[in-house]
Amino acid sequence: MHLTHDQLSPALARPVMRSAVFLNEAAAQHPEALSLAAGRPFDDFFDPADLVDHLNAFEQHLVDSGLGRSEITRLLFQYGRTAGHIQDLIASQLANDEGMHIDPAALVVTVGAQEGMFITLQALCHRPQDVLLVASPCYIGMLGVAELLGVPVVPVPEGEHGLDPTEVARVAAEVRADGRTPRAFYLVPTGSNPSGRTMPLPQRHRLLAVAEEADLLLLEDDPYGFLTDGPEWVPTLKALDTAQRVIHIGTFAKTCYPGARVGYVVADQRVHHADGRISLLSDELALIRSMVTVNTSAVSQAVIGGMLVRADCSLRKINTERVAHYRSNLALLLDCLDQGLPEARRLDLGISWTAPDTGFFVVIRVPFSVDEALLIRSAEEYGVLWTPMSYFYPGEGGTEELRVSCSALSPTDLAEAVRRLTRFLDDTASAVRTTTRG
Amino acid sequence: MHLTHDQLSPALARPVMRSAVFLNEAAAQHPEALSLAAGRPFDDFFDPADLVDHLNAFEQHLVDSGLGRSEITRLLFQYGRTAGHIQDLIASQLANDEGMHIDPAALVVTVGAQEGMFITLQALCHRPQDVLLVASPCYIGMLGVAELLGVPVVPVPEGEHGLDPTEVARVAAEVRADGRTPRAFYLVPTGSNPSGRTMPLPQRHRLLAVAEEADLLLLEDDPYGFLTDGPEWVPTLKALDTAQRVIHIGTFAKTCYPGARVGYVVADQRVHHADGRISLLSDELALIRSMVTVNTSAVSQAVIGGMLVRADCSLRKINTERVAHYRSNLALLLDCLDQGLPEARRLDLGISWTAPDTGFFVVIRVPFSVDEALLIRSAEEYGVLWTPMSYFYPGEGGTEELRVSCSALSPTDLAEAVRRLTRFLDDTASAVRTTTRG
Repeated sequence: MHLTHDQLSPALARPVMRSAVFLNEAAAQHPEALSLAAGRPFDDFFDPADLVDHLNAFEQHLVDSGLGRSEITRLLFQYGRTAGHIQDLIASQLANDEGMHIDPAALVVTVGAQEGMFITLQALCHRPQDVLLVASPCYIGMLGVAELLGVPVVPVPEGEHGLDPTEVARVAAEVRADGRTPRAFYLVPTGSNPSGRTMPLPQRHRLLAVAEEADLLLLEDDPYGFLTDGPEWVPTLKALDTAQRVIHIGTFAKTCYPGARVGYVVADQRVHHADGRISLLSDELALIRSMVTVNTSAVSQAVIGGMLVRADCSLRKINTERVAHYRSNLALLLDCLDQGLPEARRLDLGISWTAPDTGFFVVIRVPFSVDEALLIRSAEEYGVLWTPMSYFYPGEGGTEELRVSCSALSPTDLAEAVRRLTRFLDDTASAVRTTTRG
Repeated sequence: MHLTHDQLSPALARPVMRSAVFLNEAAAQHPEALSLAAGRPFDDFFDPADLVDHLNAFEQHLVDSGLGRSEITRLLFQYGRTAGHIQDLIASQLANDEGMHIDPAALVVTVGAQEGMFITLQALCHRPQDVLLVASPCYIGMLGVAELLGVPVVPVPEGEHGLDPTEVARVAAEVRADGRTPRAFYLVPTGSNPSGRTMPLPQRHRLLAVAEEADLLLLEDDPYGFLTDGPEWVPTLKALDTAQRVIHIGTFAKTCYPGARVGYVVADQRVHHADGRISLLSDELALIRSMVTVNTSAVSQAVIGGMLVRADCSLRKINTERVAHYRSNLALLLDCLDQGLPEARRLDLGISWTAPDTGFFVVIRVPFSVDEALLIRSAEEYGVLWTPMSYFYPGEGGTEELRVSCSALSPTDLAEAVRRLTRFLDDTASAVRTTTRG
């Protein structure tokens, strides 16, 4: 038998769902192209031999914690608790690295941040009137979850100077006036994907106040916080949250490694049940995930647990090299853009870009339409891949923007990729200008 | 802030969702009770030292396959393909052990069978009229998925002699007459959880014919197939499927270990898209899972991949000891039931049970109402845990039945657990009889 598209979930036909497939196919069809599209970590930080050392360190930690052989075996091999078994280590790491003091019972270990987003949205948005507000442009993984679950998304546009909390209040009020319920506001406050922005401390306080006034939950997604350090460091929204307004979604994808698929949700909100029982939102999220994946791989939890144990529950200590790589790559990316398209030239062509001081991403604004066909031309004729920004906009937007990432390439490859990119941008903008004048 | 239950998904309040929590809490509160509730594998088959050997075997396999160091590192640490990276090994194992010849491209590696069920139902049932038919009683994990996704479930009752394919046709026709669309029929054809039944070969052929006539997909969930061997072996529905009517959901939870969270879906149906493109259903399932979990832990895939490599892609070869344990435990369970409640006595009391020849589960029918309060009394006063069968019935049913499992206990503990259970059953049935007569 065969199936027709209308028999399957309509989400499958949406561009946001197909974007990753398109990018992967474009990369596979142009193996010689250098990719500024991928936001994955740099390969050189990984060594297969580490896996065994991490596993051994975690087992020793369990022995030191007083567990017997049969308990350790059960922990490593059996189904295990749906909330996970390394919440205490994660809570210690959040305290050490981020000054977040979290009850381990309020933590659910998930299959990456992605499952965290999925189960959180599934718990919160279920009535026809429930909508999700998102900072726009928005991380594509959250837009995909909303598509799959059929949850309407309402954008709160980031302005020239980043997200304005007053705009969140305004959009929330509009949504309510429309008879709908804004259940939560989703954002990546530090090194945002895709905009690269980091929200300063005063705006974080203001956003928390807005959440209180507008009776909103904040969904804070924080994969890149570890990249800020020293005077640039800004506390997470969750660290500033005194009223349980924030659900914090974290991941070890960028600080440890993505293939482990270990993330977590901090959800310390109390839930009042019809029978008088009170639980934590984390308990309810664990219940949902018990029917989605049952739990996070025990061996993955052991590897990440071992990494945490070996680093005395502080990833900042072991991540100085990573932070240095990503920072110098970000600076290199901006330098190479500037060399390839010096200020006078880019002003003349109508090209500009953001200059974030942390994260992986830079957004380039161009005077021509950016779509998948253009990406293929860039790959074929210039040997460089990037991401159309329109993927990141719920509804319209981003049609004259592209995103480039500094994370996955070596400095040498990055410099070459940006040389190719600036040639492509110059040629394309010049051609448009000629056409327009002609 | 706090949340109230009506702000969260209504699925969270449903008994089917809360049953595992209730059973876990009952076990935690009665640590001295022996558990006939758990369907997990026997701990003695697990050794932490194996993990490293499996990992090393998988790495060597990648080297032997011609992959370079950087490719291997990327495979073990990076995000990876959403469909997984051990499909070829799984396809070989299915060919060797089950005579199933599957194109690896039709396989999606999932986070256990649970994610397989989740993404399959999410793909197939999305319109208000779409319903899922299930063999009833039904595995609780599938009922939970349907609750979460809001998909109506229509039971096809198993009769005294197991599932009758004609009943499937009858119920499907009824559903259609009602203006609804039966999208698929879900069953565990071998060693069913909870009924313990195995569908004989002629009924399998008949069910495939019914699927064709009624234009139904069959969702075959097969965690226990490895327990049948020799003359008892029955081919899977997928092995008999010549018309792509079967979506096959598998797992390594019982043959390897549950904590790995590695399962798979075989979905070789062609999908015709609006733009003329043709894909496999497996491609569409991979797209959905890219927004649920991104992919299955790379280290888990490596461990399972290593187990497969070390066993020459035949789990039957390495599972003879497991099969022997589960078979002798199942026979022991039935023997001990018979010793504790000999035929005359149980006839007198109105107690009976199923006598499956494979799988983990036996269903006991009793002349009294079986609920959670009774389970707590059984734990407190008799020191034995089991599962109320009502959990497994969509709608009404199973209120005078309980499920016991032979899998997780040593023979000594199993015998003691059944002694406690038969005392509990005898006492409770006797009390009911006295009350009724009184």
